[in-house]
Amino acid sequence: MDNWIKKDRQYMDRALDLAWKGWGKTNPNPLVGAVLVKNDDIVAQGYHGRLGGPHAEAVALEKAGREASGTTMYVTLEPCCHYGKTPPCTDKIIEAGVKRVVIASLDPHEKMAGKGVKKLRQAGIKVEVGLKKAEAEKQNEIFRKYIVTGLPYMIGKWGMSLDGKIATHTGDSRWITSEKARFDTHRLRARVAAIMVGIGTVKADDPLLTCRHPNYPGQHPVRIVVDSHLRLSLQSKVLEKISETPTIIATSEEIKHKSKEMEIAKQIENLGGEVLYLPQTSTGKVDIFELVKLLGQRGLDSVLVEGGETLHGSLIEANYYDKYIVYLGNLVIGGTNSPTPVGGKGFQALKDSVMLNNMEYEYFGDSIRIEAYPFLENQR
Amino acid sequence: MDNWIKKDRQYMDRALDLAWKGWGKTNPNPLVGAVLVKNDDIVAQGYHGRLGGPHAEAVALEKAGREASGTTMYVTLEPCCHYGKTPPCTDKIIEAGVKRVVIASLDPHEKMAGKGVKKLRQAGIKVEVGLKKAEAEKQNEIFRKYIVTGLPYMIGKWGMSLDGKIATHTGDSRWITSEKARFDTHRLRARVAAIMVGIGTVKADDPLLTCRHPNYPGQHPVRIVVDSHLRLSLQSKVLEKISETPTIIATSEEIKHKSKEMEIAKQIENLGGEVLYLPQTSTGKVDIFELVKLLGQRGLDSVLVEGGETLHGSLIEANYYDKYIVYLGNLVIGGTNSPTPVGGKGFQALKDSVMLNNMEYEYFGDSIRIEAYPFLENQR
Repeated sequence: MDNWIKKDRQYMDRALDLAWKGWGKTNPNPLVGAVLVKNDDIVAQGYHGRLGGPHAEAVALEKAGREASGTTMYVTLEPCCHYGKTPPCTDKIIEAGVKRVVIASLDPHEKMAGKGVKKLRQAGIKVEVGLKKAEAEKQNEIFRKYIVTGLPYMIGKWGMSLDGKIATHTGDSRWITSEKARFDTHRLRARVAAIMVGIGTVKADDPLLTCRHPNYPGQHPVRIVVDSHLRLSLQSKVLEKISETPTIIATSEEIKHKSKEMEIAKQIENLGGEVLYLPQTSTGKVDIFELVKLLGQRGLDSVLVEGGETLHGSLIEANYYDKYIVYLGNLVIGGTNSPTPVGGKGFQALKDSVMLNNMEYEYFGDSIRIEAYPFLENQR
Repeated sequence: MDNWIKKDRQYMDRALDLAWKGWGKTNPNPLVGAVLVKNDDIVAQGYHGRLGGPHAEAVALEKAGREASGTTMYVTLEPCCHYGKTPPCTDKIIEAGVKRVVIASLDPHEKMAGKGVKKLRQAGIKVEVGLKKAEAEKQNEIFRKYIVTGLPYMIGKWGMSLDGKIATHTGDSRWITSEKARFDTHRLRARVAAIMVGIGTVKADDPLLTCRHPNYPGQHPVRIVVDSHLRLSLQSKVLEKISETPTIIATSEEIKHKSKEMEIAKQIENLGGEVLYLPQTSTGKVDIFELVKLLGQRGLDSVLVEGGETLHGSLIEANYYDKYIVYLGNLVIGGTNSPTPVGGKGFQALKDSVMLNNMEYEYFGDSIRIEAYPFLENQR
C-alpha cells in the first residue's frame, strides 16, 4: 500500500504546514495546502487563506503559471469538482497540465468522496490518495464533522489543578494554568466559530471571552452565554466590544412572559447583544441541544465550551463533545468544597461514563495539555 | 566540567540499571550498582541486593577477584568508608588495586559526603564524581531523605478521571485507571516500607493493600489505617494475610478510655494487627505527623499514601508530601457530588497552594501517570 518515498512525505508535510496558515480564517471551509513540484523543485505553493478566497490549488496554479505543466501537486484535501464559491479545482488542475496529484484526504461527504479523484484520472492524471491521511483528517476535524452533519464541532475545555480543582474554595482561580497554556486557549479561540459558557461562569469570573493572541488579531469567536433565567448583569464584560465580537445570550422561551426579564433582554439588545429564546427542558433550563443545532444552521462550525461545571455536565452526560482539551496546572489546591470542572449529576456507573481515546499530552510551560476524543462506539 | 566520554556514560547507565534490581529489597538502605571495567571490557558487576547483604562494590570486587586490579569502577553512590553492617568498601577497593573510581552521587549525609572520595584519593586512586548525578539521586530519593532526616519519604498517590473524580457519585471506582497503571501502583508498593490509607477508604473500597506484582512476590508494605475513632470492621481485608504483611491501625489516645472501642482494639490484636494510640489534634483526630515520625523511628523509610481525600487533604495542607504520583484515567465521569482526590478545607488562595516542579508524564496503557515534586522553596 504505502509506496510513497521520503520526498513525497516531505512535500505533503509542507502542504499541511501551509494549510495551517488559514487557521480561523476559512471557517466553515476547510484548511487546505497545496505544493507544486517538478524535478524535485517546488514550483509554487498555496493555501486556502480566507472564506470565499481562492482555493489552495488555484493559488498554487496561478503562481506557477505555465510552469504548472508537468508538475506533481501535493494537496491536503481532495480537489473539488463542483461549482461552489469558486470554479472547480479539478478543471484548473487538468487545464494546467499537472501530471500527478497526491492527495492526503478525501472529501468528507460520502457522496462526494472520490469524485474529484475520478475526474482527474479520467483526464489521464496519475492520482494517489492517502499520504498523511490521519494528519490531514485531524487538521480538518472541525470541517469534516460540520460539513457532513450541519452540527458544530463541540470542544469541551477546562483547566484544573493536579487534584482536579478549578479554583480554591473561596473562588480564587487566576491562574490555575501557565501563561503558555492560556495562550494556547487563545489560539483555539482564534479558530472556533463560537465560545460558550454558562451564566455561572460569567457571574464567577466575568470573562471577556475574546481572542487575545498576537498571531491572530481580531479573530474573535461569537460569544454565547447560556442564561436560562436571564440573570446576566448588564455590566458583564461579555457585553463589551460587541462591535468586534458578537454576543448571544441564550435564554428560555418562558422569559417572554416575564416583564422584568424582558426589560433586561431589551437592554442587552440596546448594548448590541442578541437574545435568543429557546425551548426549555423539563427542569426549566435552555435546551442546549436545540441551541447547538441553531448555531449550526447559522453557519457556526465549532463551539468551544469553557465551562462552567453545569454546562459541561449537561453536554458530557449526553456524550456531546467531539473533543476534550484539558490543561493540568502544576499545583495542588485541595478542599472538599473547591469547585471541579464537571458538575451535574454525573454518570452513575463507570461503565456508562464517557471513555476517551488517544489521550495526547504536551507541555505548555509548567502546565500539561491533554487532548482526547470520546470512543466512537459510545458516541451519540 | 563534563569530561566524561560516551563509554563512561554507558557503564554508569549499566550501574544504574543494576541498582534497580534491589528495588524494595534494600530498604532503608540505598539502591547501588557497580561495574568494573578494564580495557573496555566489563570484568565484573554487582548490586546491593538485600538489606544486610554485601554492598554493590563488594559483590563486583568479589566476582572479579584478581582481575579487579587496574580496573575502573563505576558506582552509583559514593563508597562507604565506615564500618556498618559490612566492612568499608573503600578499603576493599584500595586492596583490590582499582585504578580509577567514577561515582554518580555523593553520600547524602552532609558530614559523610566526600569522605569516601577523599580516602580513595589518599590511596592514589583517580576519583571522578557527578556522572549521571541527577539520575542517581532520583533513584535514591527515598534513601536520601530518610537517612538524613529520619522521617519517611512521603508519596501522595491517586488515580482520577480526566475531570478529576475518583469515583462516580454512587461510589463506583473500579476501575478509573488502566490495568497497566494499577500494575505500576503494585510496583510502587513493592518499594515502599508502608502504605497508608484513611478509614474512609477502607470503608468505601475495602482494599487488601498488598503488593500483587509478579516481579515482586511477597514484597508487601506494612499496611497502616488511620482510624481516629476505631471504626474498622473486623471483616476488613486489611486484617487478612497479616502474617505476610503487618497491619497497623493508628487510632487516638482517647480510645483507651472507651470500653467498646478497646474491645475492638483487642480483637484487632487477636487477629494479629497492631493498634497504635497516638496523640490527637484539636479536632479529635490522630496526629498524623506524630504517626509519621514514629514510623520513621521504626525504620520505615517511605510511606505511600493512597487516600482518601481527608488524609490527602491533611498532608497536603501541611505541604508534607515529598512526591506526587497521579494516574489519569481515560474517562470523564462528571457529577458535582462525585468524590475527588483531595478534600479537607483546601488552600484559601492559589498563592498558598502547593506548587509543583517538573511534572513528568508517561503512558501506562490508556492512562497517563504524572509524577511531580513540590517546589523546595515552599516545602516545610
